[in-house]
Amino acid sequence: MRRLSTQDQNFKQVFAELLAFETVNDPNLVQTVDQIIADVRQHGDDHVLKLTQQFDRHPAHQFSDLELSQQQLKAAFDGLNQEIREALQLAADRIRTFHEAQKQDSWTYVDDLGNTLGQKVTPLDRVGIYVPGGLASYPSSVLMNAVPAHVAGVPEIIMVVPAPNGELNSLVLAAAYLAGVSRVFTIGGAQAVAALAYGTQTVPRVDKITGPGNRFVAAAKRAVFGQVGIDMIAGPSEILVYAEGVNNAEWLAMDVLSQAEHDTVAQAIFITPDEALLEAVESAIEKHLNELPKAEIARTSIENRGALVLVKDRAEAVDLINQVAPEHLELCLDDAEAMSQDIRHAGAIFMGRYTPEAIGDYCAGPNHVLPTSGTARFSSPLGVYDFQKRSSLIMCSKDGVKTLAKTADVLAVQENLDAHARSARYRYQ
Amino acid sequence: MRRLSTQDQNFKQVFAELLAFETVNDPNLVQTVDQIIADVRQHGDDHVLKLTQQFDRHPAHQFSDLELSQQQLKAAFDGLNQEIREALQLAADRIRTFHEAQKQDSWTYVDDLGNTLGQKVTPLDRVGIYVPGGLASYPSSVLMNAVPAHVAGVPEIIMVVPAPNGELNSLVLAAAYLAGVSRVFTIGGAQAVAALAYGTQTVPRVDKITGPGNRFVAAAKRAVFGQVGIDMIAGPSEILVYAEGVNNAEWLAMDVLSQAEHDTVAQAIFITPDEALLEAVESAIEKHLNELPKAEIARTSIENRGALVLVKDRAEAVDLINQVAPEHLELCLDDAEAMSQDIRHAGAIFMGRYTPEAIGDYCAGPNHVLPTSGTARFSSPLGVYDFQKRSSLIMCSKDGVKTLAKTADVLAVQENLDAHARSARYRYQ
Repeated sequence: MRRLSTQDQNFKQVFAELLAFETVNDPNLVQTVDQIIADVRQHGDDHVLKLTQQFDRHPAHQFSDLELSQQQLKAAFDGLNQEIREALQLAADRIRTFHEAQKQDSWTYVDDLGNTLGQKVTPLDRVGIYVPGGLASYPSSVLMNAVPAHVAGVPEIIMVVPAPNGELNSLVLAAAYLAGVSRVFTIGGAQAVAALAYGTQTVPRVDKITGPGNRFVAAAKRAVFGQVGIDMIAGPSEILVYAEGVNNAEWLAMDVLSQAEHDTVAQAIFITPDEALLEAVESAIEKHLNELPKAEIARTSIENRGALVLVKDRAEAVDLINQVAPEHLELCLDDAEAMSQDIRHAGAIFMGRYTPEAIGDYCAGPNHVLPTSGTARFSSPLGVYDFQKRSSLIMCSKDGVKTLAKTADVLAVQENLDAHARSARYRYQ
Repeated sequence: MRRLSTQDQNFKQVFAELLAFETVNDPNLVQTVDQIIADVRQHGDDHVLKLTQQFDRHPAHQFSDLELSQQQLKAAFDGLNQEIREALQLAADRIRTFHEAQKQDSWTYVDDLGNTLGQKVTPLDRVGIYVPGGLASYPSSVLMNAVPAHVAGVPEIIMVVPAPNGELNSLVLAAAYLAGVSRVFTIGGAQAVAALAYGTQTVPRVDKITGPGNRFVAAAKRAVFGQVGIDMIAGPSEILVYAEGVNNAEWLAMDVLSQAEHDTVAQAIFITPDEALLEAVESAIEKHLNELPKAEIARTSIENRGALVLVKDRAEAVDLINQVAPEHLELCLDDAEAMSQDIRHAGAIFMGRYTPEAIGDYCAGPNHVLPTSGTARFSSPLGVYDFQKRSSLIMCSKDGVKTLAKTADVLAVQENLDAHARSARYRYQ
């Protein structure tokens, strides 16, 4: 595993190169996806069915075969063994409780002139949740996307999940049942995104699409952005673990590996001012790496994008963390809370030695959809706020408008907008 | 002006066609802009200077000639005549007061297991405000973009504004002074967006870029999205005026025209259940249209994209309004507040007969950067929340983690993520 020290002569450059990750926009991909979207807009259900038969080898004969019933979702939940059912229920409950705290309310106030001002906060009417099929079909993703929408009060939550060869993950369906999903279509890829964005005879048009997907899905979301809202296009998963003081190297190593096993381009960085700890963590990573079922993925990630970084002190670590703006940050030290005050950019901050990142993926409560690739500099975890929107409210009284109308008149004249000026002038003259 | 009635046989189709407005993605434009961005990333200041000399015919000899000092901004403000200075100050003060109410705070709670959960809310480090030059150089846009960033606590606000032939609008500089802008560069176009997104030797890299611009600016913002955050790409301005009961047709007509004068593709729609009022408003629009300095723009907008719509009753109007999801909505009736309860989608709702949309453009307080083209279905006015971001906070206690770690273990095993499961297991076994 790559070892760096902030004392290395070329540290800044090497560290910057380590972080660099640019997604290439493949023009062929964009063209393919644009064509799929155009065809779905023109032919609706028929085209989505055709592509689903073709790409997913789905045995459906007609479009209605691609919709699941609420009974099927409930049956999936009821059919789980007790331990798994209870774990899923606990996760859903905790995610719901945390997200309730994010709900925003409308507000108004009356200004000193007697005019009422405020913002009305309302849920979106209808949202689409994309859930990948096959290997990366995660029930936790269903909860993390659908629960915030449900808490926001979105009346219709439409889920799409491809079913390769007609096969479905029953935990994914059980999670949809728990999360309050309204309808489920077993479709995927750019065709599912297009169906959600524009609507077909059967799939209703949504207002926003969230959830992860492969490069076709990502390109399709990019293409329909504006027609509908989308969440961020996620990059590879990342963790940055900072540790000092007494720590269990095995634990830290496994936390690092838990990101590395996600993806060959995932990024796991370990930072400490303690050289002995750094060596112990390196040994533990080496020791455990080959025991993992996903050893090959984890090893590629660790070797190509991982690093162990020795810093002089905590202040240096804080600077590096703020430069990385990591998706997941673990602060494994005694006064983690104090250190967290200095962290300006991170998707989620896991504090103390008993807060492994993995619990955040499932059941701590906060969302696991987090800004990646340094976008924590300007964006936030997925939340209830992503499924609510605001309308400004303005109501002037006959007297209260006078000062405002006069001011608007003066400024509109300066901007050469005569109708604006006159429209305001009518109200005070 | 086009007259429609919901009783027309083909009303639904005609109305849908009236609303349809699709921006065409010009591949040549995208290529040109991508090249400019690549060149600015490679050559920095030199390339920005070269393009500024070329496109803006700016007399600058070196890059430092393209930065304004705080003294220049203050001088612009001090040099305004008293009426204009006071109007600008009042607008800035009211916008600031309204946006203070949007500021969000960090929060945490302790769950029943003894774990601390919450979200830390922090301002962005540095943002870029794009201000168009020339004809559409609006001081109000400077206030509406920069004040929310300042209220959010963003330490560095970098403004770019092109100065064709080296000429600048002193009101724009005065507004920058009032709004708390940190630095101003007289650059524009895709080169200014690229400089802000990636940084040059002189222009610091920002975390988010907001503000309107021409098609080069819009394409550049689209291209750098992900590297930095951006606000929505704005479509043409829109107003929907609904009126019933006693109304002044002249006032309503001027409110309609105040949007039409913005742009030949701006959209102004008037809806009423009162046929006599509809006719009176139509006459007043015709009467005033030719008096406007921007008569030609307004006429094109009114003829191509405007409409007068007769509805059966208020309920029908509510349905149409929710279908349009207008940027600006005026409700000119006695109980506007009651009607506003039924409006699900609108950028801003102006209630009552003394609340012309124009005061919202300048000085009511709420932001004038609003979702257009139906995007109010899923997005919000620009606000302080656009310049803040959140980090999730999770801190488990040694005992409190046990239930969570067990749950994460069970679910991670189901998702075939072994390192996740083991990382959680260490904490409860």
